[in-house]
Amino acid sequence: MQNKINIAIDAMGGDNSPKKVIDGIKIALQKNQECFFFLYGARDKIESEIGKDNFFLENCKIIDAKEIILDNESPLVAAKRGEKTSMWKSIESQKLNKTHVSLSAGNTGALLVISRLVLNTINGINKPALAGLWPNNNGMNVVLDLGANIECNEKNLLDFTCMGSALCKSLFNKERPKVALLNVGSEEIKGNEILKKTFDILKKNEIRDFEFCGYIEGNEIMNGNVDVIITDGFTGNIALKTAEGTANFITENLKRSLNKISIIFSYKSLKKFREKLDPRKYNGAIFLGLQGPVVKSHGSTDAVGFAHSIEMCRKIAKANLIEQIKSHLITVDA
Amino acid sequence: MQNKINIAIDAMGGDNSPKKVIDGIKIALQKNQECFFFLYGARDKIESEIGKDNFFLENCKIIDAKEIILDNESPLVAAKRGEKTSMWKSIESQKLNKTHVSLSAGNTGALLVISRLVLNTINGINKPALAGLWPNNNGMNVVLDLGANIECNEKNLLDFTCMGSALCKSLFNKERPKVALLNVGSEEIKGNEILKKTFDILKKNEIRDFEFCGYIEGNEIMNGNVDVIITDGFTGNIALKTAEGTANFITENLKRSLNKISIIFSYKSLKKFREKLDPRKYNGAIFLGLQGPVVKSHGSTDAVGFAHSIEMCRKIAKANLIEQIKSHLITVDA
Repeated sequence: MQNKINIAIDAMGGDNSPKKVIDGIKIALQKNQECFFFLYGARDKIESEIGKDNFFLENCKIIDAKEIILDNESPLVAAKRGEKTSMWKSIESQKLNKTHVSLSAGNTGALLVISRLVLNTINGINKPALAGLWPNNNGMNVVLDLGANIECNEKNLLDFTCMGSALCKSLFNKERPKVALLNVGSEEIKGNEILKKTFDILKKNEIRDFEFCGYIEGNEIMNGNVDVIITDGFTGNIALKTAEGTANFITENLKRSLNKISIIFSYKSLKKFREKLDPRKYNGAIFLGLQGPVVKSHGSTDAVGFAHSIEMCRKIAKANLIEQIKSHLITVDA
Repeated sequence: MQNKINIAIDAMGGDNSPKKVIDGIKIALQKNQECFFFLYGARDKIESEIGKDNFFLENCKIIDAKEIILDNESPLVAAKRGEKTSMWKSIESQKLNKTHVSLSAGNTGALLVISRLVLNTINGINKPALAGLWPNNNGMNVVLDLGANIECNEKNLLDFTCMGSALCKSLFNKERPKVALLNVGSEEIKGNEILKKTFDILKKNEIRDFEFCGYIEGNEIMNGNVDVIITDGFTGNIALKTAEGTANFITENLKRSLNKISIIFSYKSLKKFREKLDPRKYNGAIFLGLQGPVVKSHGSTDAVGFAHSIEMCRKIAKANLIEQIKSHLITVDA
């Protein structure tokens, strides 16, 4: 555990936990053994799920936390009574146990509030943001903010730009990510005042760790021309959920249209299609702007999806994301 | 033409016009003969496209307008020089020729500006809005604003609610449409101040021509639980284009995944799937809040899509949409 990437996990968050958490770690451990896991939750349940798997037990430490934050609990109520919960402890672990990153599939609102309470923000950042991965024609891009901040000013959007490009570097080894602002048109005169001010500042500052590509519209998010897409949390959340809803609507309609014969003859093709767009591959949103990284897995994902968010944790800890963000910010503030 | 629904059409707007406009009218005329068409544009081109089709010629009047507004022209520049253009004349036709509705596939921004200049707003409405049709599990719903107003206050959103439900009644004969506000969560505390104020006003006023269903999130737009979805023009435009981009991304990936054998055996199924989601069926956005209705066809649609927007014109003129909106507004103001 000393030379390993230490990941603190809320073993109780999300549907079907701790089973999916344990199974997710098993999948991750099969892939590589770079990580050591601090598991926070009901010890008896976690241990009975692990069973006599010695290899697993060698790679984890279980810390008992009896209390759990519920999915429907208000974030503020959760934060008030939170100190003894598995979620809180998995975040606090970064301070107490020097773990490198925290991961939970629990209540998103509570995770945002507790993370802010426990981990300080990076010097110079007022609003941390939630960043996610979005499939595109070339692979994946980073989109933020996905809902942490309903209203954002130009300073916030600039911070998101720096944090998002640092995240993109960490995850995809992009030397100079292409960044764009999400807007209702690509002309300079389009959009609200905050977007125009952000555009002007980004356009003027040319030497930087990322390439500013101007505005893109909603239909360009997935075309693969840019790596990082910046927006306020209200717009980002609407865009993300509209895309999810559209994807579900289309695939449901496709299913209903296919008859038995076509399913048999298209089995391989449809499998390839499903695999490419499997949402479990994109599972994991990163809460950026705090002194330590916190990853949120989708509550309803399964062990495979959870393993993908573990892989995300591994990458951002290995790339030293927080230091990357700090160095990006300095460049922009100059 | 006296007892008919008189539709004024900008015959020159959008790709491949006036051919697609003429072909679109031909399709519409085959379906029913309730409409008479005032065609504005280059007479020679329109006439050569119609040819010797006497039935067509009996159902239309061509008014020569040599000038055209270009797709990439700035709306303000277009409006300044607009008076002699086919677009302007097709809108002015509601005043000069008592046509009931105007239709163009041209430059959206110019159409919005010129419509406002030529047709007054309905008394009590400060911001007209662009409403569109969105496919859902039960058929279609109405979403507005799709981009006419970047920033909206609660008064605007209330107006959109009344106009949208009147439109829904006109198009789908819904007696009491279900209306929801687009937000980042369904709880009352979610969203920005403007949404919360709108929510409170709509919640308090119970007796009305529509049923208020609270907030919905982006992933619920297409589930068919509500008929009218209200949002500001910035959010609505991002949501619409994100949905378009997602739909394209998925269908492109599906195409690439299918091999020849599966295409042959799935031909009928895929055809059914394509037909159900054919964007031409939803072609036509309506500019609401003016003293006369203006319909915008997608610039890149074909004759089939254009015929769908003619059908939309027929329905809203027949249902006397403007009077419907006026009576809705009074109810809400009370």
